[in-house]
Parts: sequence; C-alpha cells; structure tokens
Amino acid sequence: MTPTPARPIATAGPVLIIGSGLLGASLGLCLRASGVDVYLEDASPTALRLAQDIGAGTPLVDAPDARPRLVVVATPPDVVDACVVRALAAHPQAVVTDVASVKDAVVEGVLDEAARTGDASLARRYVGSHPMAGRERSGAGAADADLFYGRPWVIVSHAQSSPEAVLAVRALAGDVGGVALEMDARTHDRCVALVSHAPQLVSSMLAARLVDAPAEALGLAGQGLRDTARIAASDPRLWTAILAGNAGPVAEILAAVRADLDDLIVHLEAAAERGPLRGGSVGAVNRVMEAGNRGVARIPGKHGGAPSRYAELEVLIPDAPGELGRLFTELGEIDVNIEDLVLEHSAGQSVGLARVMLDPARLGDASAELERRGWRIIPHAG
Amino acid sequence: MTPTPARPIATAGPVLIIGSGLLGASLGLCLRASGVDVYLEDASPTALRLAQDIGAGTPLVDAPDARPRLVVVATPPDVVDACVVRALAAHPQAVVTDVASVKDAVVEGVLDEAARTGDASLARRYVGSHPMAGRERSGAGAADADLFYGRPWVIVSHAQSSPEAVLAVRALAGDVGGVALEMDARTHDRCVALVSHAPQLVSSMLAARLVDAPAEALGLAGQGLRDTARIAASDPRLWTAILAGNAGPVAEILAAVRADLDDLIVHLEAAAERGPLRGGSVGAVNRVMEAGNRGVARIPGKHGGAPSRYAELEVLIPDAPGELGRLFTELGEIDVNIEDLVLEHSAGQSVGLARVMLDPARLGDASAELERRGWRIIPHAG
Repeated sequence: MTPTPARPIATAGPVLIIGSGLLGASLGLCLRASGVDVYLEDASPTALRLAQDIGAGTPLVDAPDARPRLVVVATPPDVVDACVVRALAAHPQAVVTDVASVKDAVVEGVLDEAARTGDASLARRYVGSHPMAGRERSGAGAADADLFYGRPWVIVSHAQSSPEAVLAVRALAGDVGGVALEMDARTHDRCVALVSHAPQLVSSMLAARLVDAPAEALGLAGQGLRDTARIAASDPRLWTAILAGNAGPVAEILAAVRADLDDLIVHLEAAAERGPLRGGSVGAVNRVMEAGNRGVARIPGKHGGAPSRYAELEVLIPDAPGELGRLFTELGEIDVNIEDLVLEHSAGQSVGLARVMLDPARLGDASAELERRGWRIIPHAG
Repeated sequence: MTPTPARPIATAGPVLIIGSGLLGASLGLCLRASGVDVYLEDASPTALRLAQDIGAGTPLVDAPDARPRLVVVATPPDVVDACVVRALAAHPQAVVTDVASVKDAVVEGVLDEAARTGDASLARRYVGSHPMAGRERSGAGAADADLFYGRPWVIVSHAQSSPEAVLAVRALAGDVGGVALEMDARTHDRCVALVSHAPQLVSSMLAARLVDAPAEALGLAGQGLRDTARIAASDPRLWTAILAGNAGPVAEILAAVRADLDDLIVHLEAAAERGPLRGGSVGAVNRVMEAGNRGVARIPGKHGGAPSRYAELEVLIPDAPGELGRLFTELGEIDVNIEDLVLEHSAGQSVGLARVMLDPARLGDASAELERRGWRIIPHAG
C-alpha cells in the first residue's frame, strides 16, 4: 500500500481505535502514515496482533500511560453502542466517535447513559461518523490506508455535541481523505435505509429465487440479472446486525415496495387468467416502471449532481490478452477521456462488449478513428 | 458497422423480415452482409424506408415476385402472434419464425390457427426464436450487423414443428453469430421470467422508492444502488407488452418474492418495536440473505458454467484523460489479460476505483509491478 500524500494533519493524537477490523485497521494505517500516534484495542488478541503487524498501531495494553484525545469505535454493529458508552467513561478527556453504518441507536445509547449517570460530558464528547467505505472483504488483512479516500464521510452530531468534538471528527474525516458532510442521526438512518439497506434486501430477495432455478435458466442470465443481484453476495451476519439497528426505516421502505408488489401481482394474475393470447393491459407494470424510470434518473452520476449526459460508444472486444488494453491505449492516443465503462459478456462466449462513456463532443471522431483502426463499433440511434 | 467475417452461409434466401425495428433491421444488415437476399415489411412506411436506407434489405412491395423461403417476424411483442399467423398464411412455402422474448403465446396462436383452419402445415412450418440481444435503444437507427454476435439464441420448436423448419432457424441463428440452444416454449418462458422479467420489476420497484427521496439521500448513493437500479431505466411501454405475454410465470416468481418480503417486514417491524438499542435477532434477514448468497453464486461468469474464481486487483484511478488507458496499456505490457472490470465512483469525487479481475496466478506479480510503476493498489485479504 502507498501512504497518502503529505499534507498538514489536523487530527491531534494520540488516537485510540477500538476494533481492529477492516475499518479500524485502515484508519490506523492511514493515521500512522501521517505520523499520528495510534493505539489499538480489540476483544480478539489475534485480530489485535494482525492489525499491529500490518502497522495500524500499538496495542493499548502495551502503553498503559497513553492518554488518547480521540477514540474511534470500529467494532461490529451490534456492540457499537455499548462500546461507545464504555469508551466515554474510560477516557474522560477524549472525544469519542464510531464508524457504524446506523447512527440513531448509538446516539440514543449515549444520551441515555448521560441521563442515567447525570454526566453531561458524556453527551458533549460524542459525535457519530459513517464513512461510506465498505467493501466485500473484512478484517485487518484487507485494510488499506486509502480506504476512505474520496468517499463520503457522514458526521452525525446531536444537540448536545460540543463544537470541539464536531471539529475533531471533521478533522479525522479530512485527514484520511474522506469528504465530510453533516446530517442528524434520524435523517442519516433514513437515507441509508433508502440507498443502501433496502437495496441490499431487494437484491437478496431476487437472488434467493435462483437457488432452485434450473441450470438452463441460469444459462440465459445476462448483465441485467448480474447487476441487480450483485450485492446479494454480501455477508449475511454483518448485514443482519446492521439491519437490526435500522429496522424501522427499512421496514417502512419495504412496506412501500410491498404495495407496488401487491399491485403488480394482482394485475399480472388477472392478465394470466385472461390467457396468453390476450394478456392485454397490465397497468401496474407501466406505473411501476415509469416510477422506476424517474427514480433511477435521480441517482447522481460519477461527478455528483444530476446524472451527466455522456455519449456511449459500444465496442466489441475479442477475449485475448491485451485487447482491452489496446482499446484504452488507442483511446488515450486519440486523447479521449473515459468517463465510465461497463463490460458485458454472454455466458460461454469469447467476445465481450465494452460500453465506454465519453464526452458527446468526441463521440463522432472517436468512433470513426477506432473503426479506422479496425475496432468493431456498434452504432447508436443518438 | 463492419461485416461479420466471411464463412459459409447456411440460410437459404430470400428472407423476409416483418418489422424493421432494432432486431429486424440488425438481422437484415447481417444477412445482407453475407449476400443473402432480404426483403422487408413494416406497418410504418417511415420505419421501412429507414431500414432500407441503412442497407437492411428491399421493401417487399418493390419486389412483387419475391418468394421468401424464411420469414422472420420482428414486430412489437403485443402483435407478434397475429403477425406470425398472417405470415404463415401469406407465405405457404416459407418457414416462419419470430424473435419475441415470450414464446408460449405465439406457439398457442399458431396451434389454434392450425386447428381452426385444419391446415397442419401452419404448425409444421413454425419454429420460435428468442435471440438474447436486447439493448437500451430501439429502431433501425440503432441496428447493427453484430447485434447477435456471441449472444444466446434460443430456438423454440413444438411437437408439430418439422425438422426442416428447425434446421432453417438453427441456420439463421448460426449465420448471424448467435449461440443456438433449444428449449420448449413453457420452459423458455419460465426461464426468462426468472432471469429477465422478474429482475426488471424488482429493479423498478426499488428505483420507484427514489422518486420522492430527499436529495441528501441520493448523495450517499453508492455502486450497490447504482447496480441494483440500473435496469429500472428500461422502456415501460416495451416491457408492459412483454410482461403481459408472460404474466403467469412472472406473477409466480413475484409471489415467492412477496413471501420473503412479508417475512422480512414482520421481523423488522418487531425489531423496530423492541427499540433501536435492542434490535436483536432478525432471523428473516439472515435467512433471505443466505439464500441470496447461494442464488447469486449460481449465476454463470463470463466464460459460462460455474463462476470463475478470478483474482481481483483494486487500483485507484485519477480522473484525468488517459489514466484508465495508461493502466490498461501497462497491464498489457505486463501481459495480463483482464477477465472482467468494474469501475466505481463516489459522487462528486475526482478519483475512481478500477476492480480488475485477472488470473489468480498473475495477481502477485501484476500487483507488484503496477505499484512499482506508481499505481495505488488496494490490497486484499486473500
């Protein structure tokens, strides 16, 4: 791994990271690369040693005099709230944050504890975080100093958070390359229910239908199924814990999905009863698909804001070493920047299709030049 | 567009193509490039002239003496059955096929007509087709001779189809570069309901939730949502017609989705009632996600069969012209074949992540060599 570029570091160490999995160890690596003192805690001695071995920090047990100024709780989602409360008590001078992907439960846990103990400093010193930097692997072995680079980092303060605590967490987000944005806990949880948690369950429900599918059906699978079902490969244990903590907002979205689903089933069953020769109108299909058109159009593209209107060039790619590389080399020679790229394959085939998104102003000459160089371009309607 | 490579052509022309949209015009282009005589019919004179202008064939009205030996019906899905029956009657010496994505309704229409007229030759001369070669644009303007190249082409004969008719349709599929496979109509329709029609509706239902989403939620959208909702951009009119013709099998799959959805909602609502601090066990989430894991693992990878176990290399790509090209050039220089590729972006960011799938045996040296050349590689657990 490579260190992040040198620049002024705003985080005042030492930093204690509790939980040395993917997120904790990546944070440690990144902070260490910037010269910040990092201490580590983990319930698992093995995990702790692994994180130490890759250079993510020093076990806190080996530094009994350490006085962390910032504590980052990066434990599994179902114990985060308890760990945050313990950290606030154990490190009474420190600002405490956590990196869990659901925030309301953690904030409530802190406020309850502050009320129970009558210690308002507990609440003042806590500010939540949600770095949007998951990946498909877990553990310190998958850690990387660049994990947070360029990713949104949601900062979740509450009414009693002190400005100093908010600043400390903003500094952390910025120091590891994250893009800080602020939201309150409920808004955050509803947002991630919509853009992350509900999509996860929808994808899993679809993929679950394939368990007993005949092999011949899977042979007809195309890119549409592959994309829609991709995140169904996510870790059930991790997600069960995440969803348990955000059950209300997710249930609300799923209830809205169920209303559409009921409507679709009623209309499709009626069409089936009329017989295949007179399927006729399936109003619910049209309605749901039109809403889907409008919804997907709102997802920001690569550069944020409204989706960019790139032109698309489709090129056939023979399945031989270097062919895709040759295409990109030649696009580079023509000075075309690739804004986005999708590769499509058919099962069993030795040819692929590259869909290259580029500046519409360059489409005509790029297409002509690639054809001149022998590429097979699939032309578009416009 | 480029002609397909020269090779012996098995299709005995002339071929009449009824319906000169994307599929019809692409077929015409491809057959013309191989020297086969192609005639065209279309209810829209404008569409017909466009297809003629791009070289897809000659309007049948201009060749009153033409005697087509093969008729391909490529009209919109809701009129295919009627068009096939008319074509069988109008061209009594011809084999007739169609390219609709639902087959049972068309077969039933032909068998009904054969029974009604007492003309068994109608049934003998009909064999259905489903070339799996859709795309997001429609019309002859988007046509391409390579549209079917390397794609599965399902051949759907029925008990009364003559062997000669089956051979003629196999020849057509092979001549345009398709990969022929055979299925009966009901099996075909259930397969596409599972791998294409149900995924379409599931993706649309998810994307429909975004219509009224706050902008800040969409700012947190990541690759998971983008992938799951991508096909929600499909054309509602076309899909309403397709789904009307396959309503029964699709309704059956959606009913199974609803059983899981009901279960998820019950468990999530119960967890929400227990409160965010003790979400506790959400058994349905775990069950559905585990089934999703098993289901998605059955989708064939690029080369067919079980998913290949490629190694994955994650590389940070600065958003500057030629950077992606430079990566592929350098992978080519190291002689690494890219088996698959996914680009990931965060909204508003000027850096992307390329996930390159490659031969596991090459992972170590490719990774080391790229780092030596200054690329930022994100290491994996293994």
